[in-house]
Amino acid sequence: MHVVITGGAGFLGQKLARKLLLGAKLTGPDGQKHEVTKLTLFDVAAPAADIAQDKRVKVVTGDIGDKATVDGVVTDAAASVFHLAAVVSAGAEADFDLGMRVNLDGTRHVLEACRRLPAPPHVVFTSSVAVYGGDMPAVIKDDTPMTPQTSYGAQKAMGEFMVNDMSRKGFIDGRALRLPTIVVRPGKPNKAASTWASSIIREPLQGDSVECPVEPTTEMYVLSPRRMVESFLHAHELPAASLGFNRAMFLPGITVPVSAMLESLKKAGGQAAVDKVKFVPDANIRRIVAGWPMRFDPARAKSLGFKADDNFDQIVQGFVEDDLRRNVA
Amino acid sequence: MHVVITGGAGFLGQKLARKLLLGAKLTGPDGQKHEVTKLTLFDVAAPAADIAQDKRVKVVTGDIGDKATVDGVVTDAAASVFHLAAVVSAGAEADFDLGMRVNLDGTRHVLEACRRLPAPPHVVFTSSVAVYGGDMPAVIKDDTPMTPQTSYGAQKAMGEFMVNDMSRKGFIDGRALRLPTIVVRPGKPNKAASTWASSIIREPLQGDSVECPVEPTTEMYVLSPRRMVESFLHAHELPAASLGFNRAMFLPGITVPVSAMLESLKKAGGQAAVDKVKFVPDANIRRIVAGWPMRFDPARAKSLGFKADDNFDQIVQGFVEDDLRRNVA
Repeated sequence: MHVVITGGAGFLGQKLARKLLLGAKLTGPDGQKHEVTKLTLFDVAAPAADIAQDKRVKVVTGDIGDKATVDGVVTDAAASVFHLAAVVSAGAEADFDLGMRVNLDGTRHVLEACRRLPAPPHVVFTSSVAVYGGDMPAVIKDDTPMTPQTSYGAQKAMGEFMVNDMSRKGFIDGRALRLPTIVVRPGKPNKAASTWASSIIREPLQGDSVECPVEPTTEMYVLSPRRMVESFLHAHELPAASLGFNRAMFLPGITVPVSAMLESLKKAGGQAAVDKVKFVPDANIRRIVAGWPMRFDPARAKSLGFKADDNFDQIVQGFVEDDLRRNVA
Repeated sequence: MHVVITGGAGFLGQKLARKLLLGAKLTGPDGQKHEVTKLTLFDVAAPAADIAQDKRVKVVTGDIGDKATVDGVVTDAAASVFHLAAVVSAGAEADFDLGMRVNLDGTRHVLEACRRLPAPPHVVFTSSVAVYGGDMPAVIKDDTPMTPQTSYGAQKAMGEFMVNDMSRKGFIDGRALRLPTIVVRPGKPNKAASTWASSIIREPLQGDSVECPVEPTTEMYVLSPRRMVESFLHAHELPAASLGFNRAMFLPGITVPVSAMLESLKKAGGQAAVDKVKFVPDANIRRIVAGWPMRFDPARAKSLGFKADDNFDQIVQGFVEDDLRRNVA
């Protein structure tokens, strides 16, 4: 079975790729479970060498905003697509045209390419809780309307409507997941306004000091990379009939204050690790984070079998096991 | 002041054009009220001769799916845009690619052209209550999520997100209105599944017999063309600050059963007119209409000053005065 991951060189794309290459089975258009015999990783950059060197892997670098390029990636042989490629929040806000090109046109190109396949492929689309914003209820529920207040969120919301409509038309068999903040992200800090939520765990556990721009009481709605990869596979395997008229949903996460994150850090790295965290207020980051929804009631996703992490200790432990000890990006 | 109406040859576009040509004033980018000194009507066809011959009117026929064409219509001199052009529900459902080209790409071309103007223009975008569908609450409220179950509805929902995001970015000053079914539509029946709601009034008042495919108890959420044109102007004139973080809303209408429509018909045309209506069930039309939302609580639009018709008698009377006696399309 031939699977395509867009954004295949990103940290989640690579973790998903490793999981598939280790033998995770997926349901094909024939309704049977298959191992992945060919895995196309499409991104602007190449994935880590251990993935790229696997004989089942085909690496394609290019611009998802270019229709011909995407048509060359999602070929007739593709049976399933995980569409993770995106310009993230800060990037899409700084460059509106780039966000529209990658997040809207790119998604449309992927879905249009899928539409031409011999059988409607399962398409797992990464949306975001950034579809919520502005005046929100105290707790986000399944029937809370999407009111994005960033271009990234607006582009993801539009992508969801394409996934839903093209699924309704029978062009694809889509599933759209609104991701919580994924923590602990391995690698280096990026420009996301949430990057500190990973940094305050990742850096101290490697002996580096780190600045925390928000207060100890600040909360985040988070999910571990490990659970996220499980959720990608779970979403892929759900029967279409279980999804009903709306293919999009937000995923269960846990709402954790910074103070609790640091307690978990202490358990994993001792007081020395916690001492590496300095609180250095950043008004801009605080303002952005204050606008994010933090409390969710993910009734629908839970009823469909998606799972949050049990607690933040578990999230830190997963990072130590999956990333720190293996020292992979 | 130069104003552009896309879909300017449609029945609403022409009614709006006549209103503007009669001297309705609009607020320009300078914050002052102006008469319309130039009116560009863009559509696939030309408007009626009485409009086209007005010296202030420029008629442009062409494809809104073509970016260069739209750039040639929304030129630097344009101060306001009413974006009405669309492939309607049945058309977008029958031809997915055409719907995406006109309703999504076309809207994006219009907004992108507006973005390049010297000052952010007021843009009034016609969305639709077709953004609702599937499992809906008994009464649609302002916080009911968009869950379109037609390609037309999905494309309109995506258009709303573009209008909202580009307004938030300061590229345009947008206002998106979700229209009820506009009744009584002059002219000929079209292929919309709601066309009978106009036909059962229009045809008998002209002495023609007509088939009604739904039951006397079937309800529709309707607004007259007269009130709709007033709503376009009202939406244009609303201060941006009154709209807050969401530029989209559904408009007040009245929910009327067919039986009440026929009572109004009787008042206007006597029993002879009502006798022209034959109930001829159409299972397909009934199924489609049964999926439409019919009860709304338009609290937000009402608070912003939008008005429904007082009753269906008034709607029929408006048709008689505006269309039947003038015999214009």
